[in-house]
Amino acid sequence: LFNSLANGEIPMPDVLIVMGSQSDAGTMKHARDTLDDLGITHDERITSAHRTPERMVEVIKGAEGEGFKVIIAGAGGSAHLPGMAASETILPVYAVVPQSSSSILNDIAGVFSNIQMPAGVPLGYLGLSKAGATNAALLAARTLALADPELRERLRAWIANQADAVPKKPDFTKV
Amino acid sequence: LFNSLANGEIPMPDVLIVMGSQSDAGTMKHARDTLDDLGITHDERITSAHRTPERMVEVIKGAEGEGFKVIIAGAGGSAHLPGMAASETILPVYAVVPQSSSSILNDIAGVFSNIQMPAGVPLGYLGLSKAGATNAALLAARTLALADPELRERLRAWIANQADAVPKKPDFTKV
Amino acid sequence: LFNSLANGEIPMPDVLIVMGSQSDAGTMKHARDTLDDLGITHDERITSAHRTPERMVEVIKGAEGEGFKVIIAGAGGSAHLPGMAASETILPVYAVVPQSSSSILNDIAGVFSNIQMPAGVPLGYLGLSKAGATNAALLAARTLALADPELRERLRAWIANQADAVPKKPDFTKV
Amino acid sequence: LFNSLANGEIPMPDVLIVMGSQSDAGTMKHARDTLDDLGITHDERITSAHRTPERMVEVIKGAEGEGFKVIIAGAGGSAHLPGMAASETILPVYAVVPQSSSSILNDIAGVFSNIQMPAGVPLGYLGLSKAGATNAALLAARTLALADPELRERLRAWIANQADAVPKKPDFTKV
Amino acid sequence: LFNSLANGEIPMPDVLIVMGSQSDAGTMKHARDTLDDLGITHDERITSAHRTPERMVEVIKGAEGEGFKVIIAGAGGSAHLPGMAASETILPVYAVVPQSSSSILNDIAGVFSNIQMPAGVPLGYLGLSKAGATNAALLAARTLALADPELRERLRAWIANQADAVPKKPDFTKV
Amino acid sequence: LFNSLANGEIPMPDVLIVMGSQSDAGTMKHARDTLDDLGITHDERITSAHRTPERMVEVIKGAEGEGFKVIIAGAGGSAHLPGMAASETILPVYAVVPQSSSSILNDIAGVFSNIQMPAGVPLGYLGLSKAGATNAALLAARTLALADPELRERLRAWIANQADAVPKKPDFTKV
Amino acid sequence: LFNSLANGEIPMPDVLIVMGSQSDAGTMKHARDTLDDLGITHDERITSAHRTPERMVEVIKGAEGEGFKVIIAGAGGSAHLPGMAASETILPVYAVVPQSSSSILNDIAGVFSNIQMPAGVPLGYLGLSKAGATNAALLAARTLALADPELRERLRAWIANQADAVPKKPDFTKV
Amino acid sequence: LFNSLANGEIPMPDVLIVMGSQSDAGTMKHARDTLDDLGITHDERITSAHRTPERMVEVIKGAEGEGFKVIIAGAGGSAHLPGMAASETILPVYAVVPQSSSSILNDIAGVFSNIQMPAGVPLGYLGLSKAGATNAALLAARTLALADPELRERLRAWIANQADAVPKKPDFTKV
Repeated sequence: LFNSLANGEIPMPDVLIVMGSQSDAGTMKHARDTLDDLGITHDERITSAHRTPERMVEVIKGAEGEGFKVIIAGAGGSAHLPGMAASETILPVYAVVPQSSSSILNDIAGVFSNIQMPAGVPLGYLGLSKAGATNAALLAARTLALADPELRERLRAWIANQADAVPKKPDFTKV
Repeated sequence: LFNSLANGEIPMPDVLIVMGSQSDAGTMKHARDTLDDLGITHDERITSAHRTPERMVEVIKGAEGEGFKVIIAGAGGSAHLPGMAASETILPVYAVVPQSSSSILNDIAGVFSNIQMPAGVPLGYLGLSKAGATNAALLAARTLALADPELRERLRAWIANQADAVPKKPDFTKV
Repeated sequence: LFNSLANGEIPMPDVLIVMGSQSDAGTMKHARDTLDDLGITHDERITSAHRTPERMVEVIKGAEGEGFKVIIAGAGGSAHLPGMAASETILPVYAVVPQSSSSILNDIAGVFSNIQMPAGVPLGYLGLSKAGATNAALLAARTLALADPELRERLRAWIANQADAVPKKPDFTKV
Repeated sequence: LFNSLANGEIPMPDVLIVMGSQSDAGTMKHARDTLDDLGITHDERITSAHRTPERMVEVIKGAEGEGFKVIIAGAGGSAHLPGMAASETILPVYAVVPQSSSSILNDIAGVFSNIQMPAGVPLGYLGLSKAGATNAALLAARTLALADPELRERLRAWIANQADAVPKKPDFTKV
Repeated sequence: LFNSLANGEIPMPDVLIVMGSQSDAGTMKHARDTLDDLGITHDERITSAHRTPERMVEVIKGAEGEGFKVIIAGAGGSAHLPGMAASETILPVYAVVPQSSSSILNDIAGVFSNIQMPAGVPLGYLGLSKAGATNAALLAARTLALADPELRERLRAWIANQADAVPKKPDFTKV
Repeated sequence: LFNSLANGEIPMPDVLIVMGSQSDAGTMKHARDTLDDLGITHDERITSAHRTPERMVEVIKGAEGEGFKVIIAGAGGSAHLPGMAASETILPVYAVVPQSSSSILNDIAGVFSNIQMPAGVPLGYLGLSKAGATNAALLAARTLALADPELRERLRAWIANQADAVPKKPDFTKV
Repeated sequence: LFNSLANGEIPMPDVLIVMGSQSDAGTMKHARDTLDDLGITHDERITSAHRTPERMVEVIKGAEGEGFKVIIAGAGGSAHLPGMAASETILPVYAVVPQSSSSILNDIAGVFSNIQMPAGVPLGYLGLSKAGATNAALLAARTLALADPELRERLRAWIANQADAVPKKPDFTKV
Repeated sequence: LFNSLANGEIPMPDVLIVMGSQSDAGTMKHARDTLDDLGITHDERITSAHRTPERMVEVIKGAEGEGFKVIIAGAGGSAHLPGMAASETILPVYAVVPQSSSSILNDIAGVFSNIQMPAGVPLGYLGLSKAGATNAALLAARTLALADPELRERLRAWIANQADAVPKKPDFTKV
């Protein structure tokens, strides 16, 4: 259960990162790296809503039983993986659109395939590319931190570091 | 098999019309009516990619075995039913977006959720609302007519009637 | 703390619904009603990022201390409330855009003001209007259910009811 | 007729690929290659709706008589070739937009010139660029497979191969 | 020839207004009325690029021989009539998109189907709805006035009247 | 000069509101009313960049000499009045797009005709419709308040009133 | 006057190409080259609606008196030159948007600044970049050919050459 | 106070340029350079609405007291800095969107996050990238020139120089 982190057992990974293809890995790595920074356990799978629909159902339906608590799903173009994931689980699902290298129309399709879900199947859309993937991990962290005071502190520190890293004056010699 | 129409058996319906909810029925009726006009048999089902994902898989996966030859799928918003249907069958799938009564952003989402499918899972997009539904039926008719010379003649007649119905001069008294 | 629901105390409300103005209440009511359906406690506040920026900071910064666990934020046009909320708290923030009665450009502005947050400040975007508000409540429920097995069961029942409510056949007499 | 593949005659090519100019050939080659992979016969022609309108009418009107069963049409910008093809034949016509090397506005024009056909003239839109061309070939294959059990098996194998080629885990060392 | 207006013969109508269907007549009437205001002769025809492609070719190809000097073409959705007209004649062709009563996506399709013509086939796009139709007539008038000094004077008077009709102060009691 | 308000003379109006036609008056009235609320003097003129270009030049070029300090310009569709105003004066020019009653494409055209001015000719874009007109007046007020401490106090009071008018809780009985 | 070509005088140039800046020359050169190909005389001027508004009025107002018959106007971003030209002359004005090297938003602004002109001021929009400039020249040629049978023959030859240059088969070895 | 320029004191800088991150400095430098050209004093700060919200409030709220008269704010993506600035001060705020190096969707988000502010909080939007930043500085100059006759003359000279720099003829040898 959710308090397994507190009682000394080896925890199952908390976050499942799924993506539609290997070409999404470059973007989704930012989610993984951010989870690592925050000490959050995770696993990654590739499964395509379109090319491997049965495996997708298996992976998503199995996630809760495997002990995952949050799913981060990334897919581009007419992206159905995040929305289908949201319909096959009751875990929170956070969507990312890996930016297309070929056409902005792919990105527009990715965004709109995620942001107008019908009432009844919630999908939290986090954004495009690196920013989207990083933020999906951070939202997963905020979600998990609700029951994990230590993670909450690590998250506070991460945010404070981020604020400290913002310079107070622009450096025009570097532009 | 495909030549069942020629050998006197009672044919199974040829076209399966699936839609995500009852609210799509107003649009999808135009597909049904056009199929009726052309003497094409059909059946209709509601199944939601998001709210009834298991039933969707069942309905779509079963369609080929039930003897259907073409699937027409209609769904709006972040519309995943047509694309998921294309990934769960090897029958031709033709997509329609029932126009949203609430927001044009729903229609934009519907269009882009259908028109940027990844390579490997073909989905023929026919259009929005009445025109899209009518044309999905007509493309189903063209598809079925490849093996059905009588349907081909009915289709030719339909097209000729349509051309005849175009007046040669506008009537400005009616505007 | 998070396990207050388990130990018999009177729980603080779990979800804070903030909105930019009274005109957003019609949409945000769908979030409230969905939370009520699931037995989730909540409170609502109006605070405008633009017209009452100081109060906004107070309300959002105070939410964690008041015991809220999730924030649902709704604002339209150049919508800054959800993003600013995400930057003033470490609770999960879920954004909704109440549909504008005046111009679709307001809705486009609302969507894009929410979906391209910079890396570091996660905002989960749920959608427009009634569907968005309902889904924001459902994502809040999924989030809270991670630590609340009873809520998880209520949520499962809600989802099952929703699936059961999907008719199997369209009724063309009603269109 | 349609069963010519079964009775040992040398079949006429089944699929006609038409495109508006030589510059579309790079995209349309993906349709050709996919048809080759599936053992589907084809021929290719260039004919421009705008620069050679008479030849376009000749080519399209003649396609049925030449024994073609499906037409794949590719054109960009204010793309009229696919829609005009659909109006000059009763064969199924599948549209592809070769991605423009000059401006995204060309691609937007290509998409919208194809996806809002008036009721009465069905055009199945498959998508942009390589994905669109590949999928047009796959939809042609699904269409032809309705009357060709051997093609149906080759198509099933193609789909299974595609599924097998999806790795189960992302390889982050390759990004 | 073009100087027939100067030598006393009964002139053939100068402007051919073509439209895709009777439903376009409400918009195209504004072109007709403006031509009437300026004393320019005209005729109107309905011919659909999609539903009556052969008649379209006939009408457009015949226009030059019938003595028309300018063609105004109106069509909506994936509008191919204006562009096809431009490719079937060497007369100037001016395009109008009658505003759709059903969906803004129809208007967007109409605009983009007209404004990205390939190099080699010029189509002058004038705009949407009443303003587009009125301006198509005015551009026809400017075109014809190049060889018709009297029309040029009528046009100058029309422009002066239009300027005089602009009030110098807004009347806020009327809003 | 600018300090005329301080020395007892009767001041010339400070703000010139120009609009392209009477149909813009409904929107621009919100600018006028807001100026009145703040005790800022103003005058209004109609002048069309397209239908009365000479008068437009006269009005705008004359504004500085007449003693105006800020120009608010409103025009829709392919809106050239605000940008031309900015190029014919060195006073600050603030643009508003009155929302079109006919097509969202008019509003999109209005926005983009104002927001991508070339370097060298600054145009401050304030927004669409009532919100844009109100905000243009408020920005004029902020501009004038730089040299008018009393106006600055009236503006502070206006802002405080606005904040006070935001209710703290939504009233769901009114939706 | 318009018949000067017939009476042996040295003709004034027929087409005035105006553009907003030197950076537009790369695009507008395609208009010039096409006019040269067709033996149409022309002159070019730079004049900015925004940076040199007085000179713009002079150039455009003077065009008719200088003997020009058609104006081709090119400008990008919030492009006011073509529309202002249309309002300062009664000659036909054809608009081109030189493609921006910096942002697609500039091109969108250019298009919408040209295509939604108010009723009363006609502007024929020809398109973006090289295709737009070439087509503006071709529409000028069609316009001038109405009174110039020799130009009409040269234009017919140009069109025939263009058709002949379209290959009948794609060459896949060149892609 | 505002008259400090008149009484011989060392003036505080007049314009505060704020930006969300160092990556905006390349764009905002154009504002700084233009202010320098016009002899306008300025200071620059980095402060992020999202990553350093408290510092943002401090910087913006303090600007008036520090003697700044105009604020230029630049931020991209879901850009909240300019709008929040406008809500935290009564100084005029002019917004710029630094063009994104990653995705046009970031620029669209930046534009729409700025141009649909609610009534009550005025934000003058100047544009994208270099043109936007230059124009923000020029609008600041126009604003300050209202009370500074010498600046007004420098601004007139700048505008005249700009007009003189526009060549009268394009140079086609340079394209």
